[in-house]
Amino acid sequence: MGLKVVALAGGVGGAKLADGLAAILAPEDLTVIVNTGDDFEHLGLTICPDLDTVVYTLAGLANPETGWGRRDETWAFLDTLEGFGGPTWFRLGDRDLALHILRTNRLRSGQPLSQIVGDVCRSLGVAPRILPMTDDRVRTIVLTDEGDLPFQEYFVARGFEPAVRGFRFDGAERARPAPGVLESLEEAEAVVLCPSNPWVSLDPILALPGLRQAVARRPVVAISPIIAGRAVKGPAAKMYREMGIEPSPAAFAKHFGGLLAGLVMDTADAALAPDLEASGLRTLIRPTLMQSREDRRELAEATLALAVDVMKERAAR
Amino acid sequence: MGLKVVALAGGVGGAKLADGLAAILAPEDLTVIVNTGDDFEHLGLTICPDLDTVVYTLAGLANPETGWGRRDETWAFLDTLEGFGGPTWFRLGDRDLALHILRTNRLRSGQPLSQIVGDVCRSLGVAPRILPMTDDRVRTIVLTDEGDLPFQEYFVARGFEPAVRGFRFDGAERARPAPGVLESLEEAEAVVLCPSNPWVSLDPILALPGLRQAVARRPVVAISPIIAGRAVKGPAAKMYREMGIEPSPAAFAKHFGGLLAGLVMDTADAALAPDLEASGLRTLIRPTLMQSREDRRELAEATLALAVDVMKERAAR
Repeated sequence: MGLKVVALAGGVGGAKLADGLAAILAPEDLTVIVNTGDDFEHLGLTICPDLDTVVYTLAGLANPETGWGRRDETWAFLDTLEGFGGPTWFRLGDRDLALHILRTNRLRSGQPLSQIVGDVCRSLGVAPRILPMTDDRVRTIVLTDEGDLPFQEYFVARGFEPAVRGFRFDGAERARPAPGVLESLEEAEAVVLCPSNPWVSLDPILALPGLRQAVARRPVVAISPIIAGRAVKGPAAKMYREMGIEPSPAAFAKHFGGLLAGLVMDTADAALAPDLEASGLRTLIRPTLMQSREDRRELAEATLALAVDVMKERAAR
Repeated sequence: MGLKVVALAGGVGGAKLADGLAAILAPEDLTVIVNTGDDFEHLGLTICPDLDTVVYTLAGLANPETGWGRRDETWAFLDTLEGFGGPTWFRLGDRDLALHILRTNRLRSGQPLSQIVGDVCRSLGVAPRILPMTDDRVRTIVLTDEGDLPFQEYFVARGFEPAVRGFRFDGAERARPAPGVLESLEEAEAVVLCPSNPWVSLDPILALPGLRQAVARRPVVAISPIIAGRAVKGPAAKMYREMGIEPSPAAFAKHFGGLLAGLVMDTADAALAPDLEASGLRTLIRPTLMQSREDRRELAEATLALAVDVMKERAAR
């Protein structure tokens, strides 16, 4: 399919849709811009969970059970670390460690993250362009009723238990989009917001200087990560409720203001479509749960079909 | 056996003798001061090969085949690193990595190496006191006919192939002995130089300010690492020849000037004993190859018996 697409992606759902897009688009037509707001320093290593999930997924190396980490992983390092009384709340597999150690060492020597990711993709045979949203340090802080928590502490260590009051993206206002980010948006015919958490996967990307404006200049279609009031994985629905909003595809669309031109939503939410259509949003009703690689591909195809519809409609105006 | 002993140790031979000493001395009576001149930075991690060999050996965790690294090790990290084109010349096992990562992270947060080693020993059940020679940075540089090489580059990456012209211990003159080093020597009734490489395992320790003088105030006994003109392991004999010296227990004793009062030497070198005795050095002829844990214990017992003889002789004077 000949369409230049930029996808914005966060965690597991984002990675799966990116994989579906990679299956139908020529590599040179797909750029995936990945959230780095949940990157963190752990045991002296720089860990980039969303980037790694996207890269491992597109490389066919992701663990199909967890969504994060590598398949065929071993845990000798973590077992030994536990014996030393070291922290084991963040699960670092033996194979996964190779990427963390290489990356940390290269970052410390002054190389930009985007260049390291490019090299990793090349060595894993990942052909589409995967870009961190920025080479600068941005850190998502979750404001909770138990205080401000760095994202991974909230998400992994505390199992997203504390109630959310808001979010902060430390460093975002000074961070420059990584080389290629704004350029790829300028060249894109359509932008896809993957079914990722709006609060902590997509918002950090859109918080970068110039990002939201660059996205807004393109036809934008999204896939709702909320199905029948629930998130497929993770705390998105819980966050909505704690922020005083009923989670739904409509709330997801509203979250982005007027940014979306089209929304793919699950068959379970079909009843919401007429109101959204009436408000000027093009909708497409589809099964959106991605359980197989075929599901990813089909959802990506539907999403791009919706994007093409939106583009035609605009051209006809 | 009630004797307060300080042992100076480097690599595998030193670790084995230290293990023998640990088998016969009460933990509070044994301090092992370990060379850190061959420590190095690799992939952003601080690696301490001699310290780790001593600690793993005393913990019963050492790999019996190699002498270095851990038994029951796995290599998923290194395999993956190789796939990324990362450096694999230094073999980092999955379990071994836990120690390197913990240590590096604690060092970077400002904790002294000696404190970290103490905690590691406690968590592995190693009861005698193991001390790095210094908490400061000392780096052994091997001067070769191919230029000056950092020790691990000479030793591991180049397989000690380049011909040696001399040695330099960068940082030694400004380094302070680690807390406990000079104190333990002051309290020691005898000092043991383990069968370690004199040039690159024992000399760096003795190069620290005040170390040689503190050692010289005690009865010092050593075990020759040279047997019948050869080193059991590593480049000691090759180094002697390249430095223009015929390797032998006599050359080993001479290396330390008048520091040694007694020398344990292998039965293969018995013929050299009379000359050494005539020069005023007490000698003991024993099989010195340590192939079993029993060998380590027996050699340690013989070494301490020689130390006691030297002490009695001095007391009788």
